Amino acid sequence: MKMTLARILNAQSVAVIGASRQETKRGYQAVRTLVEEKFEGPIYPVNPKEKTVFGLPCYESIHAIDGPVDLALVVTPAATIPSILEQCGRKGVAGAVVIAAGFGETGDSGRSLEAQMVDVARRHGLRIVGPNTNGLINVHSGLNLVGFRQPPKGNIALLSQSGNMALSLFTEAQVKSRKGFSCYVGVGNEADIRFHEYLEYFRDDPRTSAILIYVEGMRDGRAFLQQAYQTSRTKPIVLLKSGRSVTGRRSVGSHTGALAGISEVAITAFRRAGITVVENSDELFPAIETLSSLPVVRNNRVALLADGGGHATITSDLLSEAGLQLPELHEKTQAKLREILPDTASVRNPVDVAGGADANPVVLAECARIILQDHQVDGLLLVGLFGGYSLRFSPSLAFAEEDAAHRMGKLVRETNKPIVCHSLYDYARPHALDLLRYYDIPVFDSLEIASQAMVLLAEYGEYLQSYQAQTSFELQPGSKAKKRGEEILARARRDGRRALLEVEARELCELHKIPLVTAELVHSEDEAVAAAAAHGEQGSVLKVVSRDILHKSDAGCVKLNLKTEDEVRAAYRSIQDSARAYRPDVTIDGMLVSPMLKGIVEVIVGTKIDDQFGPVIMFGIGGVMVEVLRDVSYRVLPISARSAKQMIDEIRSVKLLNGFRGEPAADKKAVQKLLLAVASLVESYPQIAEMDLNPVLLHEEGCTVVDVRILLGEGNGNHHNGNHHNDNHHNHNHHD
Amino acid sequence: MKMTLARILNAQSVAVIGASRQETKRGYQAVRTLVEEKFEGPIYPVNPKEKTVFGLPCYESIHAIDGPVDLALVVTPAATIPSILEQCGRKGVAGAVVIAAGFGETGDSGRSLEAQMVDVARRHGLRIVGPNTNGLINVHSGLNLVGFRQPPKGNIALLSQSGNMALSLFTEAQVKSRKGFSCYVGVGNEADIRFHEYLEYFRDDPRTSAILIYVEGMRDGRAFLQQAYQTSRTKPIVLLKSGRSVTGRRSVGSHTGALAGISEVAITAFRRAGITVVENSDELFPAIETLSSLPVVRNNRVALLADGGGHATITSDLLSEAGLQLPELHEKTQAKLREILPDTASVRNPVDVAGGADANPVVLAECARIILQDHQVDGLLLVGLFGGYSLRFSPSLAFAEEDAAHRMGKLVRETNKPIVCHSLYDYARPHALDLLRYYDIPVFDSLEIASQAMVLLAEYGEYLQSYQAQTSFELQPGSKAKKRGEEILARARRDGRRALLEVEARELCELHKIPLVTAELVHSEDEAVAAAAAHGEQGSVLKVVSRDILHKSDAGCVKLNLKTEDEVRAAYRSIQDSARAYRPDVTIDGMLVSPMLKGIVEVIVGTKIDDQFGPVIMFGIGGVMVEVLRDVSYRVLPISARSAKQMIDEIRSVKLLNGFRGEPAADKKAVQKLLLAVASLVESYPQIAEMDLNPVLLHEEGCTVVDVRILLGEGNGNHHNGNHHNDNHHNHNHHD
Repeated sequence: MKMTLARILNAQSVAVIGASRQETKRGYQAVRTLVEEKFEGPIYPVNPKEKTVFGLPCYESIHAIDGPVDLALVVTPAATIPSILEQCGRKGVAGAVVIAAGFGETGDSGRSLEAQMVDVARRHGLRIVGPNTNGLINVHSGLNLVGFRQPPKGNIALLSQSGNMALSLFTEAQVKSRKGFSCYVGVGNEADIRFHEYLEYFRDDPRTSAILIYVEGMRDGRAFLQQAYQTSRTKPIVLLKSGRSVTGRRSVGSHTGALAGISEVAITAFRRAGITVVENSDELFPAIETLSSLPVVRNNRVALLADGGGHATITSDLLSEAGLQLPELHEKTQAKLREILPDTASVRNPVDVAGGADANPVVLAECARIILQDHQVDGLLLVGLFGGYSLRFSPSLAFAEEDAAHRMGKLVRETNKPIVCHSLYDYARPHALDLLRYYDIPVFDSLEIASQAMVLLAEYGEYLQSYQAQTSFELQPGSKAKKRGEEILARARRDGRRALLEVEARELCELHKIPLVTAELVHSEDEAVAAAAAHGEQGSVLKVVSRDILHKSDAGCVKLNLKTEDEVRAAYRSIQDSARAYRPDVTIDGMLVSPMLKGIVEVIVGTKIDDQFGPVIMFGIGGVMVEVLRDVSYRVLPISARSAKQMIDEIRSVKLLNGFRGEPAADKKAVQKLLLAVASLVESYPQIAEMDLNPVLLHEEGCTVVDVRILLGEGNGNHHNGNHHNDNHHNHNHHD
Repeated sequence: MKMTLARILNAQSVAVIGASRQETKRGYQAVRTLVEEKFEGPIYPVNPKEKTVFGLPCYESIHAIDGPVDLALVVTPAATIPSILEQCGRKGVAGAVVIAAGFGETGDSGRSLEAQMVDVARRHGLRIVGPNTNGLINVHSGLNLVGFRQPPKGNIALLSQSGNMALSLFTEAQVKSRKGFSCYVGVGNEADIRFHEYLEYFRDDPRTSAILIYVEGMRDGRAFLQQAYQTSRTKPIVLLKSGRSVTGRRSVGSHTGALAGISEVAITAFRRAGITVVENSDELFPAIETLSSLPVVRNNRVALLADGGGHATITSDLLSEAGLQLPELHEKTQAKLREILPDTASVRNPVDVAGGADANPVVLAECARIILQDHQVDGLLLVGLFGGYSLRFSPSLAFAEEDAAHRMGKLVRETNKPIVCHSLYDYARPHALDLLRYYDIPVFDSLEIASQAMVLLAEYGEYLQSYQAQTSFELQPGSKAKKRGEEILARARRDGRRALLEVEARELCELHKIPLVTAELVHSEDEAVAAAAAHGEQGSVLKVVSRDILHKSDAGCVKLNLKTEDEVRAAYRSIQDSARAYRPDVTIDGMLVSPMLKGIVEVIVGTKIDDQFGPVIMFGIGGVMVEVLRDVSYRVLPISARSAKQMIDEIRSVKLLNGFRGEPAADKKAVQKLLLAVASLVESYPQIAEMDLNPVLLHEEGCTVVDVRILLGEGNGNHHNGNHHNDNHHNHNHHD
């Protein structure tokens, strides 16, 4: 498969099917571009009606070509594609780039055409780029199937689901940087080749050292995560995911046909795979420019060097709010700075030279050296006027600025600490700023973007530092399944029940060491009284066991806080009455008697199936707050112990677990263990669509699951491939 | 006062005190700039050691000048300032611009020097700009006291607490727009002239039609709000507030000496005064450019016109997430678009012409016309490639693009609906984009900034539409005070108590119609039992009344849920014991017996004194959540009924009040009334520093305040002027 991708992206010969003599047609422009961009191999225009196109001999069909053809660019309409791919397949073409729209993005008939096309390709071992793409470019070989001329050459691979975003990025690279691209692929509908396959190719491509992705929706999120995880440690990956809003998805639907609908899940999952996710299209190119150029920031600590207060204040806010530390500089560092700066300067961090470089901008490079020699500092953001001292004061200062640029460039190499530069004067294209870029120091005219670049260097640095070799996004269904567990699920399936009975769900949990509240199954009032007596002052909870009643609380079939025999009896009868009122022919399989427990705090744990990523696990504070404030964390399965810990710590209300207002601290280790147990259970039984532990009571030692609900998938087997639309919401009733 | 400001900002004559012949000195540069910028009036260099400066005769002292002097630019060191201002005052100078740093921003000695300087000025009726400023500019008269040459001329007034931010904004205006400035003032430390005074001047300045503010901290927030409110309806005000983070404030402290510490209060208060607050320095100039150029968006509804999917998707996300509506277009509109666009185009909104303008960019202007004629649409954002069709396809398309620009420009005037443009090709400076700017259509190369411009037009539109003539930020202390209320507060003051006794606080509340839970003051166990009996099954609450115990819960002096006589007696004794344990010589003034009430939901209402804005009121959900998640809303006093309603609706957990999960809806009108009553009470008695109603129970009808705590200010009177550092946190113990 990788071999095929190499034959596509490094094609040695190209056929243009649908080549044309009309200059406004894609079939003409494609041939012209290949010729003008000096594609190294033979170009074969194919069109039965033409003799030549752009001076090249034109072939009647792909079969008429003598030599081998690696790649076919197909610019004919959607309806013709299956038969054309059939011909390409017979010819032994490795890949076809299908430009036409009118497939999966247009509805049922388009989807069926897409399936037909893929079917033909599979039969011949032919791979498809697109459809609904503007093509691909190998910048180094001149294999340019896109209108854009002379894209800047470099080491960034670009995967995009939007042609005009690709155009934007090419333009931005050309106008604002010295960086360029190794390859571009317009991924289109992903009918055949998926994001993760391109990623795998670029991981091994020696001409690519960083990967930039614009995605609106992807078809195989899990495989992508796995591949990204294996790539991002050596080659930074930057991704912008759009199509978050309803209107955004309307737009996506109308032009890529992708399954959109980003979830909170996606962002966390991408980050866990080492991907740098940006939320702002302005930051996309700056992010890859920075990450592909500079050493990372270690330990999250940076310094700020400014000339004037406003820039320093704004940038301090930005860096701090993003979580970076701006440590005060060591007193020796401060003393050294004092020596070369005027009294009005501030030397703590942010360092404000306060005009101290006006007469000699080399002072800035000296400050940079002093600051980066401080062991407390792992990166430097230079903001303000650098590059413009010659414009502001005297043209002769340009030489000093160039000197400073050389010094700073070398400083990055010596210290292996990054410098990022903001300059108000970038618009004037001073040579000193070009020099910084020559040394791979990016220069931005926006304080926000420059700060964000620093933040991303720190985040990527943190990722690399905490990189865990054992992370995996591959599921191992069945790995820890138990025979008895499979039996329970099979029985429910046989009975046509999607919901397990509470006793079944409890048994499954016990098999997997999930700590449940004790519950005695009783079948009479007297048995209930006897069971409740054991709990004494603590009180008891009584609830129905019935396959006919899913939401027990709503049906009036849960009674709390029962302390006396009378209360237990009354509750028993009341539940029976409620159950019959709920459904006259109800089958009552008994009642469960549990102690009435209290915890320091209540939490919930749940799992569901995400369209793009398969099974995910959720953690949140219990009670109404989880619904009102959505203060929850998510992870794609499987999870590591570290992920489980992070899930707990990243909810805003984690304070409630840490010993809040005189309460003892809750046992977070126990919660972590619970998350791992639930994740492993759901991974082991792919039949499970949804699991809901609510509430879970946390104690000083341990935790107790009070109620558990398990739903099976609608199909008859493995839902982990996704594609289920599961609209069930978690129900957060207590003791439900 | 306004007359004086006019004499400063429109000075007809300027003295430069500290003028110099040395070219690197400020005293030389200032004279040179005035001459080169063609200042209209006489320029008087003052320096006893020089005969001429930059060819002008130099004066020994300001007294040696014959004619009147409106303005003195003082560039001498801090220590010399008081005596120089003394001389200026005697000469009858209207204002002095004090450049020197070394005043309030440097600590105690600086603060005392600043006070001395202000004192001198006050005696002579002389006003001070600064100190710690880089000067001011009247762009139209050539009164340029700043190094920056030929700032772009226009109708924007700029107030900035940072010289390099001013430099950034001048540069940005010059490089990226056709806009310019009427005036610039470096506000500096605000030792004398405050932000609101400049604002008042610009409100009436015929050459100013929009105001741009960069502020790090301001000295009289309330007066600023009042003035902004009176200005913003006719002249848009855009403000960037920085110094939010700890490090940011460290930076502020070191260079402006301003009271920083932005609070959540500030942002809401600014918005209520009609100010457009931006949080991103990249958006600052684009915001004022847009608001000073275009009609606002009415009704929050806009359309998006793109050429290609990616830009459309990203922009849809941005607009939707900011709360704008992108309504589907009327079917007639869609039909008209269909007529001129290819089949692959999307005509719903976002409209994606999908290459339909490649051959003729005028199609975009036609689309714009069709879209803006739709009554559902009140503004248009054009994103993508406009301005670049000639570059991409054929130079001759430039004429069509210019035609389209003329049409769109006229369209804005005809429909009075705004168009904002994003273009990938702005870097190439195509004439078509310059034409758009000529028609006051701003062009941005960032999707984020273009979208944000549209959002701000909608927000300002909404503000203007909902503008309320009765809004005021002026306090009326005493206006609704009652004699009995004053007596209560005076007694506490006489007794040296900062906290009112609960019975006093309750009486004050009752005077102002704040609905309290009933509470009977008892002095014996038997009285307590009798009082509790009245509450029957509901149960009672018993708490101590003692001037010695502020935090009653923490002292074990509150007992809840007492249902039987035995429980009441036991509670009574237990409280007595706890009180004595807490403080052996405790004075117990009795106990309060209240019914144990339940509400649909508990909320809290509080007031405190903000450093910059004086008294503010706070609303939030009760319980631990308010502390954990800080889900609260704030308003500066006084508040209107509308503000009170918004305070309730803007907390995230407002859902809990709206009939959540089968609960009845809570009486929000009653909460609104309560907020108004509390605000009016606190406004009326400026002695009150802090008031805390916690919890307040909400019912289906009405609400009940269960506990109230009132603290007096530390001084002996009116704290509403701010300047108190009040570090008391709200204490959210229930029944405390």
